[in-house]
Amino acid sequence: MKIKAIFFDIDDTLYDSSLQSDLARRNALRAMIEAGLDIDEEAGIAALQNTVQKFGSNYEYHFNELLKKVGYDSNPRIIAAGIVAYHTTKIAHLVPYPDTIPTLLKLRDWGYNLGVITDGRAVKQWEKLIRLGLQHFFDTVIISEEVKSQKPYTAIFKQALKQVKCSAKDALMVGDRIDKDISGAKKAGIATVQILRGKYINQCPKDSYEEPDYVIQNLKDIFYVLKIIEKKNK
Amino acid sequence: MKIKAIFFDIDDTLYDSSLQSDLARRNALRAMIEAGLDIDEEAGIAALQNTVQKFGSNYEYHFNELLKKVGYDSNPRIIAAGIVAYHTTKIAHLVPYPDTIPTLLKLRDWGYNLGVITDGRAVKQWEKLIRLGLQHFFDTVIISEEVKSQKPYTAIFKQALKQVKCSAKDALMVGDRIDKDISGAKKAGIATVQILRGKYINQCPKDSYEEPDYVIQNLKDIFYVLKIIEKKNK
Repeated sequence: MKIKAIFFDIDDTLYDSSLQSDLARRNALRAMIEAGLDIDEEAGIAALQNTVQKFGSNYEYHFNELLKKVGYDSNPRIIAAGIVAYHTTKIAHLVPYPDTIPTLLKLRDWGYNLGVITDGRAVKQWEKLIRLGLQHFFDTVIISEEVKSQKPYTAIFKQALKQVKCSAKDALMVGDRIDKDISGAKKAGIATVQILRGKYINQCPKDSYEEPDYVIQNLKDIFYVLKIIEKKNK
Repeated sequence: MKIKAIFFDIDDTLYDSSLQSDLARRNALRAMIEAGLDIDEEAGIAALQNTVQKFGSNYEYHFNELLKKVGYDSNPRIIAAGIVAYHTTKIAHLVPYPDTIPTLLKLRDWGYNLGVITDGRAVKQWEKLIRLGLQHFFDTVIISEEVKSQKPYTAIFKQALKQVKCSAKDALMVGDRIDKDISGAKKAGIATVQILRGKYINQCPKDSYEEPDYVIQNLKDIFYVLKIIEKKNK
């Protein structure tokens, strides 16, 4: 028996989202300091991270909240400086990991169905895929906002299986987060591969669902995993 | 007597906003067609312009409305393709006219106070100035959202004069729109210079307030205007 469909997470699996966010925030803060914000850089970074945690990453007024937090009146010049630096940095770092495109191409050549299973707002996640140049690679793209379920709930994984007409035992899920990608896919009966990348790299499993079936360091190691699985099932 | 303060409009005065918007919309539409929108390019451009007119240029869901208008369900992939192309094109064309920076520098060298008087949202207008690299050039930046008045009302011009401590007769306003920049400044008693740039180039004056005192083709021609005014007032 052979794996038919392989699903991927996006952030920290196909591109370096953690580095991108860290640098975008740091550059935003430096630009705000240049525009007149009088704050120590590290204290500012801490305050900004705090604001992002409090309001969530999709909130649009982090910089306004940051100014409030450090005792400033609203200042459009400082906020604009932060926004410009943030977006410029984000876009500069919205590039796939070096092994992403070669691996996806080879998997397609070998006849696998490829899919994305990602949490977030649909337009935003598509923007990422387009800027990454990956929008044509996948047979299905499942985004939490559209299916009204999110990782680690099983509904989002089942929707993905349905779309590629594949049963759970013929599928594989690749992601960096054991609490989202691994736990959810395992509950849905899908074999799982944790990729050791990004800021969640040191998470410890809280239960057996969070223990991945396979662990890889680079995306191209997926070929070893496929070999093992397909040998097993012969 | 000598002019003390010179105020500038931003769009189509300091950079080519008309070309930028046209190209951004066209590239957005082409990207949406590439992503699966089945529409004739020119018909799409017309529909998009229509949508922008209907909802205003600061509305955030033009592409969603466009899809509705041409009978499509919401489609995050198509919308994201439009957004990415739109922003990439906008940023690529957010550069000053070739004579903008040399002219502003020389005016500063000669001791003039420089200001911006612009309509729009404060953070958005500051983003433009920052991307244009002009954020450090002006002694004052007056934005309609912050002063609760807009061109051609006189309050926004009076606010600008107050900020640079200059009386109307010692100031000059440079802009492309006779119905906004020229009319408003004249009513406030400020001498006016129309710059023949952008999509409003062929507007006809509806009253004497819309007739500029001077007309120039390039920003650097401001030096001829200054010579004439300062000779007159000797």
